[in-house]
Amino acid sequence: MKYVRLFEEAVGLSRFELGGKGYGLVEMTALGLPVPPGINISTEACKRYYALGGKMPEGLLDEVKLKLEKLAAKVGKGFGDPEKPLLLAVRSGAPYSMPGMMDTILNIGLNDEVVKSLAKLTGNERFAYDAYRRLIQMFGKTAMGVKGELFEEILERYKQKFGVKHDIELPPDALKQIVEEFKQLISRETGRGFPQDPWKQLETAIEAVFKSWNNPRAREYRRFYKIPDDLGTAVNIQVMVFGNMGENSGSGVGFTRNPSTGEKRLYGEYLPNSQGEDVVAGIRTPISIENLDKKLYEELVKLAEKLEHHFRDMQDFEFTVENGRLYLLQTRNGKRTAQAAVKIAVDMAEEGLITREEAVSRINPSEIMQLLHRRLDPSVKVKPIAKGLNASPGAASGKVIFDTDEAAALGGKGEKVILVRPETTPDDIKGMIAAQGVLTSRGGMTSHAAVVARGMGKPAVVGCESIKINMEEEYFETGGGVRVRKGDVITIDGTSGAVILGEVPTVEPELTPEFRKLLAWADEMRRLGVRANADTPEAARKAREFGAEGIGLCRTERMFNQPERLPIVREMIMAASEEERRRALDKLLPFQLADFKEIFKAMKGLPVTVRLLDLPLHEFLPPAEQLITEIYEMRIKGAPESEIAEKEKILRKVQQLKEHNPMLGHRGCRLAIRYPEIYEMQVTAILTAAIEVLREECETVGVQIMLPLVSEANELAYLREIIEKTAERVFSKTGARIPFKVGTMIETPRAALTASSIALHADFFSFGTNDLTQTTFGFSRDDVEAKFMAGYLEKGILKNNPFEVLDTGGVGRLVKLATEEGKKANNKLEVGICGEHGGEPSSIRFFHEAGLDYVSCSPYRIPVARLAAAQAAIARKEKAPITI
Amino acid sequence: MKYVRLFEEAVGLSRFELGGKGYGLVEMTALGLPVPPGINISTEACKRYYALGGKMPEGLLDEVKLKLEKLAAKVGKGFGDPEKPLLLAVRSGAPYSMPGMMDTILNIGLNDEVVKSLAKLTGNERFAYDAYRRLIQMFGKTAMGVKGELFEEILERYKQKFGVKHDIELPPDALKQIVEEFKQLISRETGRGFPQDPWKQLETAIEAVFKSWNNPRAREYRRFYKIPDDLGTAVNIQVMVFGNMGENSGSGVGFTRNPSTGEKRLYGEYLPNSQGEDVVAGIRTPISIENLDKKLYEELVKLAEKLEHHFRDMQDFEFTVENGRLYLLQTRNGKRTAQAAVKIAVDMAEEGLITREEAVSRINPSEIMQLLHRRLDPSVKVKPIAKGLNASPGAASGKVIFDTDEAAALGGKGEKVILVRPETTPDDIKGMIAAQGVLTSRGGMTSHAAVVARGMGKPAVVGCESIKINMEEEYFETGGGVRVRKGDVITIDGTSGAVILGEVPTVEPELTPEFRKLLAWADEMRRLGVRANADTPEAARKAREFGAEGIGLCRTERMFNQPERLPIVREMIMAASEEERRRALDKLLPFQLADFKEIFKAMKGLPVTVRLLDLPLHEFLPPAEQLITEIYEMRIKGAPESEIAEKEKILRKVQQLKEHNPMLGHRGCRLAIRYPEIYEMQVTAILTAAIEVLREECETVGVQIMLPLVSEANELAYLREIIEKTAERVFSKTGARIPFKVGTMIETPRAALTASSIALHADFFSFGTNDLTQTTFGFSRDDVEAKFMAGYLEKGILKNNPFEVLDTGGVGRLVKLATEEGKKANNKLEVGICGEHGGEPSSIRFFHEAGLDYVSCSPYRIPVARLAAAQAAIARKEKAPITI
Repeated sequence: MKYVRLFEEAVGLSRFELGGKGYGLVEMTALGLPVPPGINISTEACKRYYALGGKMPEGLLDEVKLKLEKLAAKVGKGFGDPEKPLLLAVRSGAPYSMPGMMDTILNIGLNDEVVKSLAKLTGNERFAYDAYRRLIQMFGKTAMGVKGELFEEILERYKQKFGVKHDIELPPDALKQIVEEFKQLISRETGRGFPQDPWKQLETAIEAVFKSWNNPRAREYRRFYKIPDDLGTAVNIQVMVFGNMGENSGSGVGFTRNPSTGEKRLYGEYLPNSQGEDVVAGIRTPISIENLDKKLYEELVKLAEKLEHHFRDMQDFEFTVENGRLYLLQTRNGKRTAQAAVKIAVDMAEEGLITREEAVSRINPSEIMQLLHRRLDPSVKVKPIAKGLNASPGAASGKVIFDTDEAAALGGKGEKVILVRPETTPDDIKGMIAAQGVLTSRGGMTSHAAVVARGMGKPAVVGCESIKINMEEEYFETGGGVRVRKGDVITIDGTSGAVILGEVPTVEPELTPEFRKLLAWADEMRRLGVRANADTPEAARKAREFGAEGIGLCRTERMFNQPERLPIVREMIMAASEEERRRALDKLLPFQLADFKEIFKAMKGLPVTVRLLDLPLHEFLPPAEQLITEIYEMRIKGAPESEIAEKEKILRKVQQLKEHNPMLGHRGCRLAIRYPEIYEMQVTAILTAAIEVLREECETVGVQIMLPLVSEANELAYLREIIEKTAERVFSKTGARIPFKVGTMIETPRAALTASSIALHADFFSFGTNDLTQTTFGFSRDDVEAKFMAGYLEKGILKNNPFEVLDTGGVGRLVKLATEEGKKANNKLEVGICGEHGGEPSSIRFFHEAGLDYVSCSPYRIPVARLAAAQAAIARKEKAPITI
Repeated sequence: MKYVRLFEEAVGLSRFELGGKGYGLVEMTALGLPVPPGINISTEACKRYYALGGKMPEGLLDEVKLKLEKLAAKVGKGFGDPEKPLLLAVRSGAPYSMPGMMDTILNIGLNDEVVKSLAKLTGNERFAYDAYRRLIQMFGKTAMGVKGELFEEILERYKQKFGVKHDIELPPDALKQIVEEFKQLISRETGRGFPQDPWKQLETAIEAVFKSWNNPRAREYRRFYKIPDDLGTAVNIQVMVFGNMGENSGSGVGFTRNPSTGEKRLYGEYLPNSQGEDVVAGIRTPISIENLDKKLYEELVKLAEKLEHHFRDMQDFEFTVENGRLYLLQTRNGKRTAQAAVKIAVDMAEEGLITREEAVSRINPSEIMQLLHRRLDPSVKVKPIAKGLNASPGAASGKVIFDTDEAAALGGKGEKVILVRPETTPDDIKGMIAAQGVLTSRGGMTSHAAVVARGMGKPAVVGCESIKINMEEEYFETGGGVRVRKGDVITIDGTSGAVILGEVPTVEPELTPEFRKLLAWADEMRRLGVRANADTPEAARKAREFGAEGIGLCRTERMFNQPERLPIVREMIMAASEEERRRALDKLLPFQLADFKEIFKAMKGLPVTVRLLDLPLHEFLPPAEQLITEIYEMRIKGAPESEIAEKEKILRKVQQLKEHNPMLGHRGCRLAIRYPEIYEMQVTAILTAAIEVLREECETVGVQIMLPLVSEANELAYLREIIEKTAERVFSKTGARIPFKVGTMIETPRAALTASSIALHADFFSFGTNDLTQTTFGFSRDDVEAKFMAGYLEKGILKNNPFEVLDTGGVGRLVKLATEEGKKANNKLEVGICGEHGGEPSSIRFFHEAGLDYVSCSPYRIPVARLAAAQAAIARKEKAPITI
C-alpha cells in the first residue's frame, strides 16, 4: 500500500483519498499556483491505523522519510539540519471539513539548537523564538494534550510584564523565557518533555492527526452531520512559509466573491507580519484585501480567477506573504449566505462557468427558506429567553397579551401584539387575526395554534414548555426565571422557535432577480408539479406570487371556525334533527360560497383542490373541563338557572361527542356518511362559486373535490354518488354545467394498501402524509412531539422527526406502493401530496422518485419545492454530486 | 339451451343447475326411492329470465309442455284432462336454501270443471274441494300477491259458522262456498280472475318462482348470508301426491338423526290426513314418527339409511303417505344444534361413513362457542329488554347494583350481583371481581369493562346505549320504558349482548367425549399452534384444560390495576424523580413475582409470552373531569384545604399526562424508553419467578418477553439491551441462568412495513391485530364502534366489523408481508398473533395461509381455534367443499 505522496505525485486522486485540504493543495500544485511544496499521507493510512487498533501502519514512517528527503532536496534544506533548517507545517484534512479535529501544528523541525541557527540565518531572533514558542504551544496543546489556556496564561503574564499589547511586540528575551516556561509546563503537565528530535515531533504530530479523527468532538460532529465514521483523515506536511518575517510579510484569507451578498469581487482580510491563525484569532484588526498594495491585490485577483475557473465555485482561500512572495496555503468551496449562494450560482451560470443544472443543484433548498419570510435582522445578535417548536415561520414583535379580546381590541387599534396562551381554541381566532404572532406553552406542530397560524402565514412558536403562564396575574416566567408581564414587548422567531425579550429588528423577504431566474430555470428542469396548501384568498395570492401551479389543499375548517360563523356551526352541531341541521347549514352556505369565489378568482383558472370538512364536530365546541368549571363558577356566583341549564346542555352534547382518540374517530368522510348534508352544502357552495366565477369573470376553475380520511373504497364510492347527485342539482338550478374532479386523501395505511380499489372511484389521490405518518407509526403528533420525540432523536432511535422528514422505510413505502398500484388500476389517476412533507427537500426527492405528479406545500415553501423538485429531476438523470 | 328435464334425465347435474331441492329429488329418483315423478327447470332459465329484463325465455314453455306430456304419459293422466286429471306441485329451489323466496303451490291443474270430476273420481268431494281451495289460496297469495290473512279471515269465518275447530272438519258445502269467496277475493284484490286454464296456472306459477328470486326479502336474505345475486332459482314441477286422502294418508318430516342431540335414531313427526304445509303450520298436534305403525316406521328407517348413505350427512326429509303408499318429497342436509353437529360428525366418521377430515371440516367453529360458556338454557324463551355489545361471552344473573363498594360487599357475602355502571375504571375492579357480570351503557369492545371482564372470563354487556342510568337515584331505564331499580334481578347474556329482566336458567358448558375426540383429530391435522391469551392463573388453567399449547399473551396491566396495588402504582406515577419511582417499583416487584410464579406453575413448562406494560400512565389515575368535579364539591362542602390541595396535585399530574389521542401516545415501549426502570422491574420479576419455579417444582418455563407498540427496529434494539442487562443482574443475583426469548408485538403498520429490520432484533413476532386494525384503518375502536360502525355495516360500506373478522385486504396484507419479510430476514423467527382475530375462524384460515406459526386467543376460544386451524390445513390441501 502506498500512503505517502508528494503533492505533484498525487494529481488525479480524489478528495476521499487526499482529504479536502490535501485535494485543494494537490490541485493547486498541478495548476502551477504558488503552493509551498509538501507531502500528503492519504486517508488510507488513517483507516489502517484504526484497523490495527491504533498503531502506526508498518513502513509508513519510512515512506514519509523517503518523500521528505525529496522535499528537502527540492527546497535545498534539511529536516533537523541546523545549517539550512527545513521547517514543516502538519495539518489534518478529512474528506469533509470537520472543525472537531486537530487542525495544524506549525514550525515542526525547530528545537533548542535549530532555533539558534534560525535566528542567525534570518538575522531575526524575535522571529526565530516566536516561531519556536508557537511550535511548543501548538504541539503541547494538540499533540500532547496540555490545556491551551495554561500557555495563554504564561503569554499574558509576559505581555503584562513587558507592558505590551500584542505578542508581536514581545522582545526576543521575553520569547526565550516563554519558550523555557512552555517547555517546563509540558514536562509538568505530561511527565514527558517537549521532543527535541524533529523526527519525533513529526511522528507524534502525524499520530496526533490520526487520533484526532476519533476524539469525542469529531465523533459528535460526524454524528450530527451524518458523516460516515470510516472515512479517516489525511495528513498534509508542508514546507513552512512565514508571514511573520516582518512588515513585508503577512497572512490573509480571501473569498473569490462576496460570501454575504454574492457580489463578484474579491473579498478578504490581511494581517501584516502574522501567521495564519492570527487572522482568525482576531488579536489585531486585519485590513481589507482591497486596501493592499496594487501589485499584491492584482496578483490575488488573478489567482482567485484561476481558482474559480478550476474549481468552478466560489473559493475561500488562505495565503501567506513571505518577504513579499505570495503563497497559497489552502483553498475550498466558500461558505456563503443563502442570498449569496443564489447570486453566485446564477452569475456563474450566466458567465458560462457552470451549467444551469449545476446552478440549480448547488442551492440548498432548506436554506432559502430564510429568504422567504420576514426574518430577524441577521446583523443583530440576540439571546433567546426560551425556545419552543417552530410552528409557523417568520419573526414578529409586539406587546405580550394574554386575553384574546384584549388582543383583538389592541390589534384593531393598530398596536402590535403577540398573543400568548397555554393553547388556542377556535375562540381565539379573533385574537390571532389581530396579533402579529402567537406563542403557546402547550401543543405540537399540529395544534390549533400551529395550524391556524401557518394558514394565516403568521409566525408562531408553540409548545414552549419552558415558560409557565399565569393567566390570572397575566405574566409568564421562563425556565431561566425571566418574568414577562402583560404589555412587555417580545419577539418570536417562528423559523427557529426562539422567544426574545424586546423588539428585534426584522428584514423583509425578497425574491431577488437572481432568485427568480434560478427558479425559472428550476421550473424547466422539474417533472413534479408544485401546488400550494392555501385556505384563504390572501394565501392563494401569495402562493401564485411564489409560483404555485394550483392549490393542492384548501382546507375548509377555517371557514367554519371564523367568529361570525362559529355560532351557526354550533347550532348545526346541537341540532336535534336532520331538518334543523340543514337549516343551520343553509345559513353557512353563503359564507362558504363567498370564500370559494374569492379563492377561485385568486387562482385564475388553475386547479383548486378543496378538501371537504375533516374535523370532528367536538372541535367546534368548548372542552368539557372548561364547561364543568364554568358551570360550577356560575353556580357559586348564583347565575340564573336558565343560563346554567343552557351551559349544561352544551356540556351534555360535548360529553356525547367526546372521543377517546379523536384523531381516529368520527371525522372526515365518516362524519359525512352519517350526515351527508354537510358535504352536500359544501359541494353546492364550491360548484355554485365556480359557476359564478365563470359567469362574472369568464374564468374557468379547475375544481377538485377531495374527501378526507377514506380508508375503504366503498366510502369514496358512497360519497361520490352523493356528490354527483348534488352537482346535478346545482347544474339544474344554475342552468350551467362545469367539469369537476372527485378524489381522495390517502392518509391511512389501509387507503394506501387498498389503493387499487380506491383508484377505481377516484380522479386523483393526494397523500396526507401528516396523518399517514401518525397512523403508520401509531404516533399522535401532538402527544409524541410533546412527550418523547426529543428523547427519541437524542437517543438516535429515530434519525429525523418523521413529521418533518418523510419516513421512507414505512410511510414512504406506502406512498410508493399506493402510487404504483393506484396508477396501474386507473391510468388517468393524478397523484399528489399535500402533507407538510410536500415542502421538505429530501422528501420531495422521494416523491419524485416514487412517481407522484405534484407536491403541495404552504405558500412560503413553494420556491423551496420548485427548487427541490428540479434537483430531484437532475439527480435522477445523473447521480447527484456530493455537496461538501 | 336446454332448461327443462325430467328428474331421471337430470342425474349428474349439480345443485347449482338444479337448485338444492331439485338436486335432492333427482338424486333420490336415481336411487330408486319413491319420489313422485317430476320435471326440473334449471337455474339457467331464471338467469335468462333476468338477462331478458324479466321476460320468459323463448321456447321455455314449449320445452315444459313437451316434458309434461311425457310425465303425463308415464302416470297415465292428462294435465287439464277432467277424465284423468294430472295435478301438479310447483316448488322453487335455489342452490342455497332461501326462506325469503316463494315456496310451493300445490294442486295446479284444478279448476271449476276438473274439481268436479276429481270429486267424482275419488269419491271424495271434501278432498277435492279442499284441494281446490288450497290451490286458489296458495296461488292467490304467492303468484298473484293477495295478502294471506284475507284468505285466513274467510276460512276462520266459515269455521266459526260451521262450529268446527280444524279445516279438515269443514263439510264439502262449506269448502265450495269458500272456493267461491276465494275467487271473488282474488278478483276484487287484483282485478283479474283466478285462471281456469291449467296452462295459465302453470305459466304464472313458473314466472312467480322466477320473480320471487328478486323479492326484497330474498335479496335481504342473500345480502345477510353473502349469497351471490346471480345464482338464480330452479323450478320443480311434480306430480301431486295427497296426504289428505283420508286416515290412511298423511304427511310428515323426518331427521335421520336427532337434530338436537345428534343421537343416531330416526326422529320426526307425522300428521295423518294432511298436506305438507299442515305439519309446519302446527294446526293440529302431530305424532312422533316412533309411534307410527311398525311397517311404515321400518320403511322410513330403511329410507333414512339409504339417504344418509348416499348423501353422507344427516338428512332432513319430507314425506307423504297417499292411501298407504309412501313418497319422498324432499331431502336436504338437516340443520342441527352445535352439540348434535359434533356428535353426528364424530359418529359418522367412526361408522366409516365420512373421513375424519370431513368430520372436522363439517363443524362450524363459530357455532361451537355456544358449547363453551355457561349459557342461557336454550329451552327457555326469553324477551330481552335491551341489547348492548356482546363484550365477554357467557350468561349471568344477579341483583342490579350500581355502586362498586356495595357490589363488593354483597358479592363478598355470596350474593349474586350484576354491576351496572356507565363505564368502569380501575376503581371498579373490586366490584367486578365480586359480581357475576357487568353491564355498562357506554364504551366499546375494548373499553375497560370489556377487556377486564374478558380477562376475568366474566360475562359482560357493554355500550348498551339504549339504557339510561340514573346513578343518583340508582335505577336504569330501557328504551322501551322499563325501569330497573337497584336490587331488581336481571340476566345478561354476554354471548348475544341481551339484557333480560329476571333470572333465566343457565346451563353449564361441557366438553362432551365426542367433542374431545373431534378436537384430538383436529390437533393431528393442523399446522398452526394454538395458545391462549391469559393474564391470571385461573385463566391459564382454563386454557390448558381447553388444550392451549402455551400462553401467547399474558398482559401485565391487570397486575397493576388490582386494588391493593393501585395506590403503589399511583405513587410511582406521582414520583418526582427516578429514585422515587424506583422505590415504588420495588414495592410492586413482589406482587408481580407472585403473579408470574402462579401462571408459570399453571402452564407446566409450556411457553408463556409476557407482554410488558402497555397502558399509558394516565390510565391509572382518575379522569380530569371527575377530579374537577370532586374539587368543586369539596370546596362547596368546605373540605380541609390540605385535602383539596392533595386532589389538586393529582389533577395537575393528570393534566400533565393528558393526551389528545392516548391510543397513539406515550405508552408501550415508548414509555419504557423514557422510564426503563418499569420494564427492569417487570423483567426482574419474570425471570426471578421462572428461576424460583424451576427450583421449587423442577419445571422449566418457556419465558418469552414481549414488547408492545414497537414501530421502529431501534426501539426494540434499545430495550433489548436493557432487558439483557437486567437479566444478567438477575442471573448473577440468583446464581441461576435460564434461557429466554425477547420479541415484539407487531401492531403498527410501520412495524409490519419494516419487519425485515425489526426481525434482526427479535426472537418472535406477535401480531396485535386489534391495534393494527385501529392504526391501519385509522379507527379508534371505542369511538368507531360507538359512533358509526353499525351504520357502515348497514350501508354495506364494510362487509364485516374488522375488529371481529380480519380485514384481509389491508390489515391482512400487512400481516402477510411482515411474516414473509420477517422470516426471510431471520429464519429462526417465530410468528404468532394475539389479537382477538386469533379466535375467529375465517381469520385463522388467513393466518394459516399467511404462514404464521401459531394463533393465541382467549381460553374459551381455544377449541374454536383448534378446529379452525385444522380446517385451514385441510382446506389448503384440497379446496374446501362449500358447506350449504
